[in-house]
Amino acid sequence: MMINIPSVIEISGTVAFTISGAFSAMQKRLDVFGVLIMGFVTAIGGGTIRDVLIGDTPVNWMRNYETPLIILGTGIATIFFKKYIKTFKTTLFLFDALGLGLFTIIGTQKGISAGLNPGVCVALGTITGCFGGVLRDILLNNIPLIFQKEIYATACIVGGTLYILLLNDLDTDIVELLAVAVVCAIRIIAVKYKLSLPKFYA
Amino acid sequence: MMINIPSVIEISGTVAFTISGAFSAMQKRLDVFGVLIMGFVTAIGGGTIRDVLIGDTPVNWMRNYETPLIILGTGIATIFFKKYIKTFKTTLFLFDALGLGLFTIIGTQKGISAGLNPGVCVALGTITGCFGGVLRDILLNNIPLIFQKEIYATACIVGGTLYILLLNDLDTDIVELLAVAVVCAIRIIAVKYKLSLPKFYA
Amino acid sequence: MMINIPSVIEISGTVAFTISGAFSAMQKRLDVFGVLIMGFVTAIGGGTIRDVLIGDTPVNWMRNYETPLIILGTGIATIFFKKYIKTFKTTLFLFDALGLGLFTIIGTQKGISAGLNPGVCVALGTITGCFGGVLRDILLNNIPLIFQKEIYATACIVGGTLYILLLNDLDTDIVELLAVAVVCAIRIIAVKYKLSLPKFYA
Repeated sequence: MMINIPSVIEISGTVAFTISGAFSAMQKRLDVFGVLIMGFVTAIGGGTIRDVLIGDTPVNWMRNYETPLIILGTGIATIFFKKYIKTFKTTLFLFDALGLGLFTIIGTQKGISAGLNPGVCVALGTITGCFGGVLRDILLNNIPLIFQKEIYATACIVGGTLYILLLNDLDTDIVELLAVAVVCAIRIIAVKYKLSLPKFYA
Repeated sequence: MMINIPSVIEISGTVAFTISGAFSAMQKRLDVFGVLIMGFVTAIGGGTIRDVLIGDTPVNWMRNYETPLIILGTGIATIFFKKYIKTFKTTLFLFDALGLGLFTIIGTQKGISAGLNPGVCVALGTITGCFGGVLRDILLNNIPLIFQKEIYATACIVGGTLYILLLNDLDTDIVELLAVAVVCAIRIIAVKYKLSLPKFYA
Repeated sequence: MMINIPSVIEISGTVAFTISGAFSAMQKRLDVFGVLIMGFVTAIGGGTIRDVLIGDTPVNWMRNYETPLIILGTGIATIFFKKYIKTFKTTLFLFDALGLGLFTIIGTQKGISAGLNPGVCVALGTITGCFGGVLRDILLNNIPLIFQKEIYATACIVGGTLYILLLNDLDTDIVELLAVAVVCAIRIIAVKYKLSLPKFYA
């Protein structure tokens, strides 16, 4: 994990997801440990489920020092600077969108490396991007947000599909950038215009 | 996955479990994506947990095209024809019972192939049959139904145990059919006569 | 699994965790099967998540007869003797603390054997000790207790860290005993004096 551009974005995503988990935990009045664990679970949950499903174990965060340390530092900082961080709501949302895009593409790429079929690769990307938040919501006893609010997983599905479709025609770096940008753009537009998927009642 | 008799029943079970998950999601007013995901999780959850526990990864649904496509098609159809499907309640219940029986035996067989002890094989069968529904209920923030209502997991335990006991004495195909039939029968009788296990309060 | 001292303590821990799961299930009025399953999940949940995360599959409880049988027996006994067991609240709590200590050290050791870095080893120990209870609370639709009440996971983190720090300087057996004792002691002191971690609200 050298400090290069994707790594910087990956760290930003991890930081944003950690903050999101820690904030949700503070809203439910968990203790310090609970807040840190929720930050951790939100940040690594998606990648962990992905690695377990494809059998790439020990799972990713267990194989490096950096990720756990970044999450720990971010979690502690979130507790100390919570009022300050609140004022950066927009910045945080942008990081979250960026993280979502990057995590989605990382997950999709892992599926391709494992030789899985395209639909499953997109599913793995979506799981990587979204399921940290799903675990967060389950642990805090909420119905997962991604099933209810603005377009979220859909952005991952579109971005992952685009990545796979363009992969053979364009340079890998360009396709990566494009796919991440599309996920971010859909997410930002959805939140800005309060777009959501239609609902059906049984 | 050729179209033969067990496969047809397996598909029926997958279809029934998908519809059950999609309906529960619509009752909780999830959006389209949530409904499809809940259908997916209910249909593949049990087999996925089984594969992860025994280390047979990438998990089963990632290794073929058919299962995800069947689930996707069924989920979309459930949304469009929900009023129509409701009138088939009995048919659906029968599919669900059939799927439960077949998934239980598939899980038990997988345990035997992995060289696990008989008790664990029955547990794997029960997990395969029941835990899709458990995941569905956790994600929708309900206490898992199988812990509360009519005999459900018990049917799997009886069927799986029977399968293992008879396996050395009779032809495999006959034992399979018999075990699946027993799971179905227990389930149908339990629902018809509203049988449930006794409860104890602490 | 020979009957030696650690094994006796491991069994005590398994028994205590099973009773704790079974009691929680009876309080939520689950049926017999639900009570037994909740006992099972509470007792083997932490070790199972640990094994899945590091890829040591089939997971531990699937590879021996003893653990499932001990859990089954304990679960049934809990149902029959629930009034009697209630009067042993303090004894149960002490077993639970002992089990927590031993499970933590077993998990930490497994991480070391897998060649993981020290922080991850402590995390694995904590997961082994605590996540059976987390699964129990998720399945029963509660916010996990360990995030809210008296110091619990913190005891595991301190014990696991101590184990790793002293491992190169002292005899393994002594370090094991010491670390288990520290986890127990922290837990007992925390409950006796109602110590809890500070909370922060977002």
